[in-house]
Amino acid sequence: MSRIDECIRGVRDPDAEAMNEAKRIQDALTKPRGSLGKLETLSVTLAGILRTPTPMIVRKVVFTMAGDHGVTSEGVSAYPSEVTAQMVLNFARGGAAINVLSRHAGAEVRVVDMGVASDVKWPEQVLCKKVAKGTKNMALGPAMTKGEAEKALGVGAELAVEAIDCGANAIAIGDMGIGNTTSASAITSVITGVGVADVTGRGTGIDDSSLQNKVRVIQKAINVNSPNSDDGFDVLAKVGGLEIAGMTGVIIGASSRSVPVFLDGFVSSSAALIAERMCPRCRGYMVASHLSVEPGHRHVLEHLKLEPLLCLGMRLGEGTGAVLAFMVAEAACKILNEMATFEGARVSRSNKEGGA
Amino acid sequence: MSRIDECIRGVRDPDAEAMNEAKRIQDALTKPRGSLGKLETLSVTLAGILRTPTPMIVRKVVFTMAGDHGVTSEGVSAYPSEVTAQMVLNFARGGAAINVLSRHAGAEVRVVDMGVASDVKWPEQVLCKKVAKGTKNMALGPAMTKGEAEKALGVGAELAVEAIDCGANAIAIGDMGIGNTTSASAITSVITGVGVADVTGRGTGIDDSSLQNKVRVIQKAINVNSPNSDDGFDVLAKVGGLEIAGMTGVIIGASSRSVPVFLDGFVSSSAALIAERMCPRCRGYMVASHLSVEPGHRHVLEHLKLEPLLCLGMRLGEGTGAVLAFMVAEAACKILNEMATFEGARVSRSNKEGGA
Repeated sequence: MSRIDECIRGVRDPDAEAMNEAKRIQDALTKPRGSLGKLETLSVTLAGILRTPTPMIVRKVVFTMAGDHGVTSEGVSAYPSEVTAQMVLNFARGGAAINVLSRHAGAEVRVVDMGVASDVKWPEQVLCKKVAKGTKNMALGPAMTKGEAEKALGVGAELAVEAIDCGANAIAIGDMGIGNTTSASAITSVITGVGVADVTGRGTGIDDSSLQNKVRVIQKAINVNSPNSDDGFDVLAKVGGLEIAGMTGVIIGASSRSVPVFLDGFVSSSAALIAERMCPRCRGYMVASHLSVEPGHRHVLEHLKLEPLLCLGMRLGEGTGAVLAFMVAEAACKILNEMATFEGARVSRSNKEGGA
Repeated sequence: MSRIDECIRGVRDPDAEAMNEAKRIQDALTKPRGSLGKLETLSVTLAGILRTPTPMIVRKVVFTMAGDHGVTSEGVSAYPSEVTAQMVLNFARGGAAINVLSRHAGAEVRVVDMGVASDVKWPEQVLCKKVAKGTKNMALGPAMTKGEAEKALGVGAELAVEAIDCGANAIAIGDMGIGNTTSASAITSVITGVGVADVTGRGTGIDDSSLQNKVRVIQKAINVNSPNSDDGFDVLAKVGGLEIAGMTGVIIGASSRSVPVFLDGFVSSSAALIAERMCPRCRGYMVASHLSVEPGHRHVLEHLKLEPLLCLGMRLGEGTGAVLAFMVAEAACKILNEMATFEGARVSRSNKEGGA
């Protein structure tokens, strides 16, 4: 049995009893019921995932996974492919947005080369797990072999499990890969059934004619490969990316260890679509950090029935939205752990909610 | 000249040059332009307010201002009036949501009794600035005398200026006062011109028939007092509250010292409506932290042309949404201060944005 299959079999349903008890505690705290909105519902979700009525986030890790995409030769991105490797070096030096925001949130960044098309020797800050030097051009045939896809999934799962064994109990995923919104749009269209034009956006910032070309290229990739929408693994190998496969593995690995996975934007959420198709129980471990302005993201979250925490108009990737959501999740947990109850603080209740 | 008039005369326009320079820096950082959404626009706003192209938030203070409302005798709230004082004690002991979230955000809480209807001797953690023991019932006549309103405004302005003199460079306002969404709805309807029913919600959680009664009471208060919508001070005194006056003073005081004021939910934003009417330049110093589920809040923010940072479905008040927004604002500033530039990190630019 492969590493990823082993993890899939280990995914349980979240702990319903812990959730009920967390809900009971929330309703006893000195505030009108429900008045902290998503902080309250998130605290209950985290109670179920972490299997305790009073969850606390103690160690946060974001996996920023990088990979190149053969489909960039079709002119789908405003940036040249070499930017993927340049940005990996920027991550290693701590100069990118994900570094700044992770320092702010107290999260550790693990930069992973899943498939960068470069021979650069990375500094030690980069985990070299290169499965291939980028994907093949999916407009001409499968992006990956099945073997490559399986290997990348296993790498992701293994990294998540290792981090959790070292104490991490909140995991985020982020992406870097020129051309990867093209792949994310293809995955999203195939799995959600929404038309390509409706799930395709400007990525890093292409103009109108490039956008039309991008839609054509994605449609061609789907026609050429005929991915089976019921088979997440097939979709991943045919129109996915190596960093997307890595993130899918992280989701499955973290879910198998009862740790929440904070999705970032459109690309990381396309990995969540694959993960959910491969292992439906994983959905219970996903937290939708924010809503990207990439038009496909909304469709992904609706399909997964996830509501985003933040709506900050971001579209950068790297895990930037997810590490901001870490701070919201910590706030949610602290409310549950630290607030006084009506009884303890001798505060009168409303007539509707019972009590004095 | 009164303290508040002195402050009003001291409010300048935000620094346009600092904003332009901040924008130039943002566009040179290693990310597609605009891809950090509201983090980017907020950093530019803060540059203008703090009058430097690279603003940093160094000390954060939230003023949680409490006051009682005579209008509660009309049955507009689900909670009894004594909860205001009970919650002030809860704030003093550190057990309320605002305490938990402020500790999380690294902000100092200043609990201020602006007009609690109680003779409780407060512990030292409470700043006793009681102007009166609650407002009068506005359904029968003016909530305050002009003298009380002026005094409360001065207290707020003075507290803001003192905090800033001690190093605070980010101020938040929050409220506690059973019955105060009734007052906020009256202010909002008068100043924005939107009908009472459309700006009135369930506050802490009243049922349908109580909501109908609340709308009737607010309409009666407006009819009885005929506040002049062009005169913020007149509206404040007639249908406002002592804690709302205090928060209005904080906004004007902080604006006069070029420090941003993070509004919280519906009640604190009604103070912003008054502040803007008394001193239009104050608008440039306001940050809309979040969108409350109280239906009137959206109308207030639209009137002030402010876009909320967070949409977490909250409706608690106390400053809870504002201190969460502090963390977003710090993230925004750190992006501007800490990220590498394309040139410095040797990352290729997109063809559209010029460069390699």
